[in-house]
Amino acid sequence: MITLDVALGDRSYPIYIGSNLLGQTELLKKHLGGSEVLVVSNETVAPLYLDKLMASLEGCRAESVILPDGEKYKTLDVLNNVFTALLEKRMGRQTTIVALGGGVIGDMAGFAAACYQRGVPFVQVPTTLLAQVDSSVGGKTAVNHPAGKNMIGAFYQPKCVIADTAVLNTLDDRQLSAGIAEIIKYGLIRDEGFLLWLEENVEALVGRDTDALVYAIEKSCINKAEVVAADEHEHGQRALLNLGHTFGHAIETAMGYGEWLHGEAVAAGMYMAADLSARLGWLTKTDVARLEKLLRRANLPVKGPSISIEKMKDLMAVDKKVQDGQIRLVLLKAIGEAVVTDDFDAALLDQTLEQCQV
Amino acid sequence: MITLDVALGDRSYPIYIGSNLLGQTELLKKHLGGSEVLVVSNETVAPLYLDKLMASLEGCRAESVILPDGEKYKTLDVLNNVFTALLEKRMGRQTTIVALGGGVIGDMAGFAAACYQRGVPFVQVPTTLLAQVDSSVGGKTAVNHPAGKNMIGAFYQPKCVIADTAVLNTLDDRQLSAGIAEIIKYGLIRDEGFLLWLEENVEALVGRDTDALVYAIEKSCINKAEVVAADEHEHGQRALLNLGHTFGHAIETAMGYGEWLHGEAVAAGMYMAADLSARLGWLTKTDVARLEKLLRRANLPVKGPSISIEKMKDLMAVDKKVQDGQIRLVLLKAIGEAVVTDDFDAALLDQTLEQCQV
Repeated sequence: MITLDVALGDRSYPIYIGSNLLGQTELLKKHLGGSEVLVVSNETVAPLYLDKLMASLEGCRAESVILPDGEKYKTLDVLNNVFTALLEKRMGRQTTIVALGGGVIGDMAGFAAACYQRGVPFVQVPTTLLAQVDSSVGGKTAVNHPAGKNMIGAFYQPKCVIADTAVLNTLDDRQLSAGIAEIIKYGLIRDEGFLLWLEENVEALVGRDTDALVYAIEKSCINKAEVVAADEHEHGQRALLNLGHTFGHAIETAMGYGEWLHGEAVAAGMYMAADLSARLGWLTKTDVARLEKLLRRANLPVKGPSISIEKMKDLMAVDKKVQDGQIRLVLLKAIGEAVVTDDFDAALLDQTLEQCQV
Repeated sequence: MITLDVALGDRSYPIYIGSNLLGQTELLKKHLGGSEVLVVSNETVAPLYLDKLMASLEGCRAESVILPDGEKYKTLDVLNNVFTALLEKRMGRQTTIVALGGGVIGDMAGFAAACYQRGVPFVQVPTTLLAQVDSSVGGKTAVNHPAGKNMIGAFYQPKCVIADTAVLNTLDDRQLSAGIAEIIKYGLIRDEGFLLWLEENVEALVGRDTDALVYAIEKSCINKAEVVAADEHEHGQRALLNLGHTFGHAIETAMGYGEWLHGEAVAAGMYMAADLSARLGWLTKTDVARLEKLLRRANLPVKGPSISIEKMKDLMAVDKKVQDGQIRLVLLKAIGEAVVTDDFDAALLDQTLEQCQV
């Protein structure tokens, strides 16, 4: 088992990465706030792993609430089911909420923990590759609004993250690839060495090679933890983790949440960011072709769905990076070097949006 | 104008108390996070004071959203209207949310500010006596759940509190008395000198004497600010501010939110706490009679509505002070000295609940 540290002063916490961690009783128990636990999971994950997790909580008062599966259920309404469960079960302020699921469950359970009685302890047990490499680390929690993704939420750090690689065996191929998109992101924005490794090993990831997965998860979490420790509340460099996300969130919102997986939308969005960066003269055509090849090998899209340029821009204007009404994007000065900027010609953005869709 | 400080390190902020502060442009403007403002108000307050507030925001992009008036609208559903307004108006992360209203508006606008894009700046402009002396200070924000009051929320401090005593002229008598209940609370839990002043001046407060009101608001805010500065997240002494609230919240939930005003329910709850404290031998019958007299002079109830003891206890078990399933209450060791305790005979609580209802 690998243990990484997210260094946030008195809110620091460990990330545990390894195989069959779900069955290890003491790992979870030592991070509980008391003897009461509510596990939040979904209809897909619960039949596979809930019993195993509950067994590791023997001696606690462990309850569970099962939400429907999918991004389209990441709403205030569905979140309210978690509060209702907590209140009906008379669960107190020392209750620990455990997220057992992918990014949607982690975001919702974390936001519920941030809000229930104004804050109760929280543990992440991510069961998708995307959640293990990205969304479970760093304390961003949220639900969606019909008008914009992740617009209602909180910065709220977990007590620990338990990333059990064994659970990835039951993940479907599309979800696996979606996770690889966020892994590629770390290479693009700040770690060209890791990108080179990915270019040599992407088929091993797609083929679920355990060693390759553990390495990619570890490298991703190290990158994420460094950025989060330096800028927890996204006043600066943390925004770089949003490479491809302004485009991607617009795709997800336009298509209806859940039609495109988040990682798929981010893949297409990263390609758009690279395309625009090339139009600005920052990347070469070779760089863009290099990214395209890697995304294709990971079975990820490089083109977005057919959406009018006006609608894309309108949706991109609902973004947490907007300042004074001006869209700001994460673009690439070079492979491995990202920046947040509003210094681009609007006509070039139009060209990118026009060219990068099916 | 009086200026008090809530000392919370880099989250410290001023409370301004005085007459006709609403029209003072620079007071509000210097606490904005940027040039965008969303004012959250309700159908009762907006027709009286929204124009005046908006005029003081000249030069900003100031928008407003008007919610229905009343505790029964303090829900996640109605809160979502604030998020919808923010998103439809394309308001960014530098937007300041200004609460113009009583405790319900302050709690909801503050919670919206805590959650929108994971946190935007926030200013309190309380327009009821209760909000000026209690709920606008200290950063507690929340909405209700049908099963329990203030169960979904956040600790989120405002950038400033502007308590304009002139707006109290339009407050109805019942609301005014409800505010006096929370003022009396400070005397009971930690400031017997203030309680003596109240016993000499309660008719002046009921009669809206400006000097008396300003003094009572100042003394209340000083007490509140001291407690909050010492224990922002209620790990200890802040719970003492909850005198009467476990009883009171149960009354509000049982009767349907809004039937009893919060301050009325707290008044009856404080009397219950005093009654139980006397049964425990901590207060004398004279102390209890003294409180009863003061509450009656403030036109406040001392008896709760008719609710079965079992229902009261069931609702009281949904309380943020519950630990390991055990109800904990704020009781009085003496006038001016409150404690949080679970060390009381259950039969005595039953007697109090039985005796203290109409």
